[in-house]
Amino acid sequence: MTSLVVYEDSSPSADAELLKKACHGWGTDEKAVISILGHRNAYQRKMIREAYQQLYQEDLVKRLEHELSGDFERAVYRWNLDPADRDAVLANVALRKENCDYRVFVELSSTLSPEELFSVKCAYQSRYKRSLEEDLASHTSCDLRKLLVGLVSIHRYQGSEVNLQLANSESNILKNAIEEKKFDHEDIVRIITTRSRPQLMATLNRYKDEHGCSITKHLKNDPDYAYTETLRTTIRCIYNPTKYFEKVIRNAIKKSGTNEDTLTRVIVTRAEKDLKEIMEQYYKRNSVPLDQAIAKETSGHYKRFLLALLGKED
Amino acid sequence: MTSLVVYEDSSPSADAELLKKACHGWGTDEKAVISILGHRNAYQRKMIREAYQQLYQEDLVKRLEHELSGDFERAVYRWNLDPADRDAVLANVALRKENCDYRVFVELSSTLSPEELFSVKCAYQSRYKRSLEEDLASHTSCDLRKLLVGLVSIHRYQGSEVNLQLANSESNILKNAIEEKKFDHEDIVRIITTRSRPQLMATLNRYKDEHGCSITKHLKNDPDYAYTETLRTTIRCIYNPTKYFEKVIRNAIKKSGTNEDTLTRVIVTRAEKDLKEIMEQYYKRNSVPLDQAIAKETSGHYKRFLLALLGKED
Repeated sequence: MTSLVVYEDSSPSADAELLKKACHGWGTDEKAVISILGHRNAYQRKMIREAYQQLYQEDLVKRLEHELSGDFERAVYRWNLDPADRDAVLANVALRKENCDYRVFVELSSTLSPEELFSVKCAYQSRYKRSLEEDLASHTSCDLRKLLVGLVSIHRYQGSEVNLQLANSESNILKNAIEEKKFDHEDIVRIITTRSRPQLMATLNRYKDEHGCSITKHLKNDPDYAYTETLRTTIRCIYNPTKYFEKVIRNAIKKSGTNEDTLTRVIVTRAEKDLKEIMEQYYKRNSVPLDQAIAKETSGHYKRFLLALLGKED
Repeated sequence: MTSLVVYEDSSPSADAELLKKACHGWGTDEKAVISILGHRNAYQRKMIREAYQQLYQEDLVKRLEHELSGDFERAVYRWNLDPADRDAVLANVALRKENCDYRVFVELSSTLSPEELFSVKCAYQSRYKRSLEEDLASHTSCDLRKLLVGLVSIHRYQGSEVNLQLANSESNILKNAIEEKKFDHEDIVRIITTRSRPQLMATLNRYKDEHGCSITKHLKNDPDYAYTETLRTTIRCIYNPTKYFEKVIRNAIKKSGTNEDTLTRVIVTRAEKDLKEIMEQYYKRNSVPLDQAIAKETSGHYKRFLLALLGKED
């Protein structure tokens, strides 16, 4: 469920006028920006952008990018984009970094519907004049490439049917590959990238029942770190997205030095989907509400904006 | 351009009634079936199926499958399906054969738009309760799997921009891999499966200019026949689909024993797209019109039906 507290009876043109006023003159009224955009859903934000363009012949996203700065600016920028366009930007930003955060691609491929993923690819092509897959393939190599390109390109079966016999035989294939320390075995990549989510869950459960331990534990301690790390991330994200995102946030704020990019990515992409469940999971796991944890580790307008997206006022 | 001669002012319910009459009693009026279905486009055929279902509470596709037989039945069956559904059936039939004809997947991936390919995958899932990619991946292995799964899953960039510097460097990458006889080099698969068609054309042209020979010639004589053969097929299909399909038809009818499955596939899938250009190319290459060549190698209702799709009456 969404964590967002939306004002249903807002008017796009009134919002656009208030945002114009907030950007007027020397200095920006960041609180006004937060009080409006932090309480509008994706459709409302789109209407505001259109009203703003019509009223002032100006791109609201670019104007705010210019007016704001730092982590706050990046969070507002991502929040303002259409979801598919935002995911395309997140993917491209990840690829252009020296230390690429491959979790972005795992999250895209594991949490979006095939239709949503198709829209992200169209948005990517329209922005960057290349395909997501070709950029990803030319930035990676070997097993990591096989895994990531497979993940973002393959259209998994969406039905709920599970073949238990297949789950059994593929659990054995995984076990054999892991026992032989062949973590890059092509069948591992095939099973993880092509099988439907329910089928994969059955295989992973079977693995756990049979061997008394989750496959992610057995995949540890491999020299090809980026590949096995991404493989484990994928399995965790498919198996339980709520727990996965809780852990991503926990690591982003608990490790020395908050990772604002990661924190922003999860809050902004999940706010209108399952952030409420992620918050509950966070509290269960850490005995501290997520908003308190974030308030402790962030500051200023950035903090206020994230809290607004969490449905909490400053 | 389509080769089909369509009767624009047909009525779906009148057509449905005529088809019901053609199937009535002992024996079927195949000529009536051909004279109707051989002159209706995909939309009209869909309307006829719907009218037939409404009038007689019966599935026309299944009824005709039951009434007709042999190559004629298979051709009419494929023709009657929605294009995306037909492609899903062709892919599944190919996978279930002992000697899989991988050209089916090459043709799907190289000639359909991303939207069309997406629809084929949805149709495949709805029919077979599995994804096209998982079936393809579990029926193949090693390099052939990498190539084919990449082809059907990757969403190529659709724009016309070409980066000539990239074409130059990737032409060199291909050349080096071929010189070292590494036909399975991961960069070959990456370039062929991920680059946009115009970009790939530029790379292949650059290769030809630089080395005085097309890459498909250099890819010959490899021990891993299915893989290199599929790679060459892909390059030819992307480079010039008209020439590619002309050759497929030529081989299907000229080799000893006509390959009706292949002939049907090409005629049925291309009739409403570019069969006219393929027919012109066939005449240019063989100095015999395609309809004459087909009439010579086929017979009966099957022959009459194919000729109707070619826009020629018996």
